[in-house]
Amino acid sequence: MPKFLGECDTITALAGGVGAAKLLDGLSSIVQPDKLTIIVNTGDDCEFYGLHISPDLDIIAYTLAGLVDEEKGWGIKDDTFNCLEMLRVYGHDTWFKLGDRDLATHIHRTVMLRSGYKLSEVTRDICAKLGLRQKIIPMSDDYFATKIRTDKDTIHFQEYLVKRCSSDVVREIIYEGAENAKPAPGVIESIIDAEIVIVCPSNPLVSIGTILAVNGVRQALKETKAKKVAVSPIIGGTVVKGPADKMMRSLGIEVSASSVAKLYSDFLDIFVMDEADAPLVKEVERLGIKAVVTDTLMKAKEDKIRLARFILGVASTFRKA
Amino acid sequence: MPKFLGECDTITALAGGVGAAKLLDGLSSIVQPDKLTIIVNTGDDCEFYGLHISPDLDIIAYTLAGLVDEEKGWGIKDDTFNCLEMLRVYGHDTWFKLGDRDLATHIHRTVMLRSGYKLSEVTRDICAKLGLRQKIIPMSDDYFATKIRTDKDTIHFQEYLVKRCSSDVVREIIYEGAENAKPAPGVIESIIDAEIVIVCPSNPLVSIGTILAVNGVRQALKETKAKKVAVSPIIGGTVVKGPADKMMRSLGIEVSASSVAKLYSDFLDIFVMDEADAPLVKEVERLGIKAVVTDTLMKAKEDKIRLARFILGVASTFRKA
Repeated sequence: MPKFLGECDTITALAGGVGAAKLLDGLSSIVQPDKLTIIVNTGDDCEFYGLHISPDLDIIAYTLAGLVDEEKGWGIKDDTFNCLEMLRVYGHDTWFKLGDRDLATHIHRTVMLRSGYKLSEVTRDICAKLGLRQKIIPMSDDYFATKIRTDKDTIHFQEYLVKRCSSDVVREIIYEGAENAKPAPGVIESIIDAEIVIVCPSNPLVSIGTILAVNGVRQALKETKAKKVAVSPIIGGTVVKGPADKMMRSLGIEVSASSVAKLYSDFLDIFVMDEADAPLVKEVERLGIKAVVTDTLMKAKEDKIRLARFILGVASTFRKA
Repeated sequence: MPKFLGECDTITALAGGVGAAKLLDGLSSIVQPDKLTIIVNTGDDCEFYGLHISPDLDIIAYTLAGLVDEEKGWGIKDDTFNCLEMLRVYGHDTWFKLGDRDLATHIHRTVMLRSGYKLSEVTRDICAKLGLRQKIIPMSDDYFATKIRTDKDTIHFQEYLVKRCSSDVVREIIYEGAENAKPAPGVIESIIDAEIVIVCPSNPLVSIGTILAVNGVRQALKETKAKKVAVSPIIGGTVVKGPADKMMRSLGIEVSASSVAKLYSDFLDIFVMDEADAPLVKEVERLGIKAVVTDTLMKAKEDKIRLARFILGVASTFRKA
């Protein structure tokens, strides 16, 4: 078990799902839990069978609780799928793979939401019950749905991602509800008060892009005195996991680490890229961002910890202009 | 596989849970499915985790579909309880044992009810999806909750039965909602149109008593030209399963087959008792009810079929005065 860093900075991370969870798993091994706040994308939230599902919140919580199915990157390890199998008998869509243990989280969340609790309160409760001491906050308590306009229809992001296996050409990403979505309590404060803000290696359009679309978040990132470090989810022109590359290509955005840096250039201080992208350092630095390279691929636990240490190390030596 | 009886009478059964399910399992082996209508108690219905649970409807449907956990008499065989285990982590009451497959039924029912379907429509859908051709009808689509007044409080029947293991002295049985509960579509018609009405060996107070408390049901039983046969759930002064004996004793009702006959004496033609209760024949016949005895204990499938055959045999030779 790695030791926590001594006097640790307060850290706020912006997170999507699997890629973010890996880095946060590493960070959690070296950062005291009470120093870490994680703001999580809820644009993927959806309803199945009358249950409110928050895929990214669950991936992060399950990962930090050591419950996650590491092979898939989501869901609970050794889970069964008996309820889902029976729901198919009753004629329900079952392309969204809900395990039996996982289902308890959605049932619990739905019961609490129906009782009038906010998603941020429910999330705090779930984290407490799972024994987590890091602060996990949904980006917003308000309705926010990421929709994808394809050549033939407009569908929820989950349908695009899971049901259609990201096979459609993406014509537009719609942040439904963004204009009215207020940041959840603690979101702005945790960005302003942090010493380091980490933008996790998540999809820049539908995981980080959604968080940035919540009212006031982008402004807070510009205003905060925190050192702001992003990790590229793109390595050598392809994505480690997920449809970011397909989506970027569809939308006419060059699939490269520097494209991601560009999306964050109005607030970012440091951009961490993979060694494979060393040739892009100059291009990123022309955006006024310090670019650094390291091995960013996280396979084993030690990779996650190493990357987390690297990020904190770079941040600690960085001096704002 | 036993053959169906040749030209079969149309049969309507009034049913509670486990005891009824056994007899209906036997009946279904010898009666064409389209000849059998089953009116089921919904006084036990309850809500857990925001899901609408209909214990007796499920026991009957699972039994006829060959899915029931025969050892317990309820739930689905070989089911897992992983969701429930995780719900306990989230701090929920878990004394009501919901299996993972079973949960799908409650989720499906709740989704349909929330979409505006009536319980009777949902039940028809569940039966169809489970491949059942018998007609299963909830006694009412309206709110009806069986409550138990104990010495210290008034609780839902399920709480009395499952959480407290029927350990309280029962001071009163309250049929909450009975005054406004209309029979579900088909309930009255199926009683009036039947050639035989069978009152299953279920708890006379909280399974059959509730059905009889639905507006118009008792009157229909008096008016129908059907031959009305009840099977005693009490054998030799004790009950095969469930709290009927405890409840009767608490309420000052003698725990005997003849007490059950008395509760149905305003409409009943034939009362089937166990051989152990042969001495009570005269007492029952003084109520104006034909009393017959046979081995009523249903352990194996052949017991169920034999009892079902016996009932149909007795009914076929019975001539109303």
